[in-house]
Amino acid sequence: MTQISQKIIIKLRDTDAAGLLFFANQLVYAHDLYELFLERIGFPLPQVIRQEPFLLPIVHVESDYLAKLEVGEQVEIILTVAKISDSSFTLAYQLFNSAGELAGEAKTVHVAVDKKRGQKIKLPDKLRNALTLFRDAP
Amino acid sequence: MTQISQKIIIKLRDTDAAGLLFFANQLVYAHDLYELFLERIGFPLPQVIRQEPFLLPIVHVESDYLAKLEVGEQVEIILTVAKISDSSFTLAYQLFNSAGELAGEAKTVHVAVDKKRGQKIKLPDKLRNALTLFRDAP
Amino acid sequence: MTQISQKIIIKLRDTDAAGLLFFANQLVYAHDLYELFLERIGFPLPQVIRQEPFLLPIVHVESDYLAKLEVGEQVEIILTVAKISDSSFTLAYQLFNSAGELAGEAKTVHVAVDKKRGQKIKLPDKLRNALTLFRDAP
Amino acid sequence: MTQISQKIIIKLRDTDAAGLLFFANQLVYAHDLYELFLERIGFPLPQVIRQEPFLLPIVHVESDYLAKLEVGEQVEIILTVAKISDSSFTLAYQLFNSAGELAGEAKTVHVAVDKKRGQKIKLPDKLRNALTLFRDAP
Repeated sequence: MTQISQKIIIKLRDTDAAGLLFFANQLVYAHDLYELFLERIGFPLPQVIRQEPFLLPIVHVESDYLAKLEVGEQVEIILTVAKISDSSFTLAYQLFNSAGELAGEAKTVHVAVDKKRGQKIKLPDKLRNALTLFRDAP
Repeated sequence: MTQISQKIIIKLRDTDAAGLLFFANQLVYAHDLYELFLERIGFPLPQVIRQEPFLLPIVHVESDYLAKLEVGEQVEIILTVAKISDSSFTLAYQLFNSAGELAGEAKTVHVAVDKKRGQKIKLPDKLRNALTLFRDAP
Repeated sequence: MTQISQKIIIKLRDTDAAGLLFFANQLVYAHDLYELFLERIGFPLPQVIRQEPFLLPIVHVESDYLAKLEVGEQVEIILTVAKISDSSFTLAYQLFNSAGELAGEAKTVHVAVDKKRGQKIKLPDKLRNALTLFRDAP
Repeated sequence: MTQISQKIIIKLRDTDAAGLLFFANQLVYAHDLYELFLERIGFPLPQVIRQEPFLLPIVHVESDYLAKLEVGEQVEIILTVAKISDSSFTLAYQLFNSAGELAGEAKTVHVAVDKKRGQKIKLPDKLRNALTLFRDAP
């Protein structure tokens, strides 16, 4: 199984008056990496939004918080393809703080839907192949 | 079991170029209502952040997306106290769209921690009572 | 000259680790009120985005910060129509903190553009009338 | 005069249902670069917030929008020190879209204030020197 990762710095805009990363922004950071992932597997988001006959809306997310993340801290986020189903796929994310400790985890479940009718469809073959290839790469 | 609810309008800032509410902002809307809830039960967030000896960080969230939510749409969000444990509590949220359909659900798990040492502590009695009272009110 | 106003509570999501409202969110709060204003004058944002032949992109903003705004604080925001030109209009905003002091000011300049070609156009008559009516109302 | 710049990708979270970058997020991107700048000149934001006797709150911003910016688009942001006054300094930002055209400009004015009393103070020497050095570097 391969993965994609990104080093980011916690931005002030994403923290809150309690002094730490605002919880929902862990999912935002996960999505930022998902956008990079989409580009890497040949489905850049602008192309999906404007040209593809399908969309990949998120139907479920989970997020766990294990250690605090502070403004200015460098965080490494790792994305892996956790599951590929008939019409959906699940991505898993791990966030490591500057000490190398697991500070957070998240999961996003995406379903392929027909752009016109909003109906659930099978994962388009080229997308499935890309996800699988990515998952199976060394 | 009682509940607290709030009618909101989906703001442009919370939507994205795919035309709908950006997924993470469903959790943000849930938290907005949580802040109102804290005030109602006598623990306004500014007081918690500045005066109380404890904090109530979120350690786990889940969010489900059942129907699309669009800019300008009126949404009703309902918060209920789903569970009260020794040192944590779980809040559940439901979002109903302008047609009255369940468009989204969420859950946030909060743990009481000592502000100085960051250690998990028992839910302070007055907080536990407030949560319980709220949960048991007619 | 009439005005539209709204009382809001500073949300945790909009503050930052420095403990106060993150500066850009003063403009976001201004825009939230602008969305309400658009609805009041008969041009709800969803209608503009989906049905009107024009858009009203922002071409210039200014924002001044006079006093700090904290999480949980009640703020009153007031919007006035400051200027109506041939193809643009300027809105002015004032934010008053819970002590009734002017805590911030902002300005947004909107230009009417043809939705298809993105070219600047004259303010549509019905919009101009609405803006004028609003500005001149008792 | 020297400058600092950063290439970023417009993130979905920062766009809105009108399909483009939400206006206030141009200032957010500017601030992201400001945070990098602070680190480069030896005043990383976490250090300012936690250790320095002063803060550098923003008292005025301006932002101009010249061309649309879309999700997934690569943007280069450039920061320059525009002005250094007795107790304040002004930073200027330019955003270039993927075609190399100037798509946006912004300005932020920062004032040095005593952290304890919130009073305006002279720019601390080491900060003034850093700003000046930066401005004058080849």
